[in-house]
Amino acid sequence: MRLLTLARDLKRRKARERQGLFVAEGIRAVEELLRSDFRIVGALVSPALAENERGSALRAALEERPAPVTDVSAPDFVSAADTEHPQGILAIAEVPDRQLRSANDSVARVLVLDAVQDPGNVGTILRTAAALGVDLTLALPGTVDLWNAKVVRGGMGAHFHHPCLTVTWDELDTFRRARHFALWGAGAEGQPVESVRAPERLALVVGNEGHGLTAPARERVDQLVALPLASAVESLNVAVATGILLYLLRR
Amino acid sequence: MRLLTLARDLKRRKARERQGLFVAEGIRAVEELLRSDFRIVGALVSPALAENERGSALRAALEERPAPVTDVSAPDFVSAADTEHPQGILAIAEVPDRQLRSANDSVARVLVLDAVQDPGNVGTILRTAAALGVDLTLALPGTVDLWNAKVVRGGMGAHFHHPCLTVTWDELDTFRRARHFALWGAGAEGQPVESVRAPERLALVVGNEGHGLTAPARERVDQLVALPLASAVESLNVAVATGILLYLLRR
Repeated sequence: MRLLTLARDLKRRKARERQGLFVAEGIRAVEELLRSDFRIVGALVSPALAENERGSALRAALEERPAPVTDVSAPDFVSAADTEHPQGILAIAEVPDRQLRSANDSVARVLVLDAVQDPGNVGTILRTAAALGVDLTLALPGTVDLWNAKVVRGGMGAHFHHPCLTVTWDELDTFRRARHFALWGAGAEGQPVESVRAPERLALVVGNEGHGLTAPARERVDQLVALPLASAVESLNVAVATGILLYLLRR
Repeated sequence: MRLLTLARDLKRRKARERQGLFVAEGIRAVEELLRSDFRIVGALVSPALAENERGSALRAALEERPAPVTDVSAPDFVSAADTEHPQGILAIAEVPDRQLRSANDSVARVLVLDAVQDPGNVGTILRTAAALGVDLTLALPGTVDLWNAKVVRGGMGAHFHHPCLTVTWDELDTFRRARHFALWGAGAEGQPVESVRAPERLALVVGNEGHGLTAPARERVDQLVALPLASAVESLNVAVATGILLYLLRR
């Protein structure tokens, strides 16, 4: 398949899952991809890229790789791009084969995303988890695809070195029982986070900003924790709330 | 001026400042605006609004106000809208006349934005500040306009009850000296935040995600504080970092 057709196809989650490929778009994301050990399948470049120095350097770096660099017109690039004002570079790479059961035994902090749908927030959450020492981030059903182009962009490179993967509840249940993880959930009606002591091995579940945790999450959590807010009418953005909780519960 | 022309004009900061008006776009933002005591000048509605129940209820609520509700075509609405896929409602309202010198004497936590440029982040920061009990948020020169439509949308209603305003360094200097505020800055090279004790009256300055604090901020701060991260290659989103710092330094 031509790279342009492939890039357009990969806008759909089903196509990404079937092909095991994803798109990293923009100078920053492709730079981070190049620094990783991910296998790059190819890159698309529009004339816009040559307009800035960092773009030209990036093109040169890509051309040293075995993967083909294909030049396309600005309108063709836009048809494959996810951003409104593209920087003129996207790379197609392989989704790594990460398995929950092969997680390292030293894993002590796991973040679990329970139907978190906003791609920008999920990208920011992955970046936050990586920065705050979370060992593993797991996305449950109903969560936006971690390899969605917006999530990858928002992750600012976290995808390439922070282990994150999609799992089912069954896989998570097996993992947490075998590894003796406590499962805590974030919820406004929970215990104030500063009144509780984090266990040695903790998996923290965060839910959708509007709806909170799903029923399967509520049934399973050992404990709900909350951040005391200034007033009941306020709420925090899910990425900000997750960041504060992860910081307070870090190892 | 016709409401449609006015709404288009208010996309520019200069027009907002000259007219003392701003635009709140989308169902949620206009609902929050209606709950506030802000004076509404008028609203624009496109046929899209009638497609959902909450939209119809919002229209009915607007029609009970003295301000005119003007129906426009979908393309006309798009020309005034800030979003790509508008919900078909925007309201024009007066920017409140907030003065730093008339701040209440009980103010103890002030957040200062030093050239923070991303409107989505600034909106999230305002929402976070309101939720975490910050008394006042101040925007220094170089920061995106607090009344930019994206900032207002991201604030999720914070603008309407959390005192936030644009100030000069001179105004901030006068205020913090007269009121005996310590000025702390967020910076990676600072003291770990958990090793310091927050003073009674604290103004925390946060800078641009890429560039950190500006020279005028660095010259003035009494102390820099940092969040210890898992590794030096990582960084936090500015709204997440601000949220964690505000939580740890809250009164």
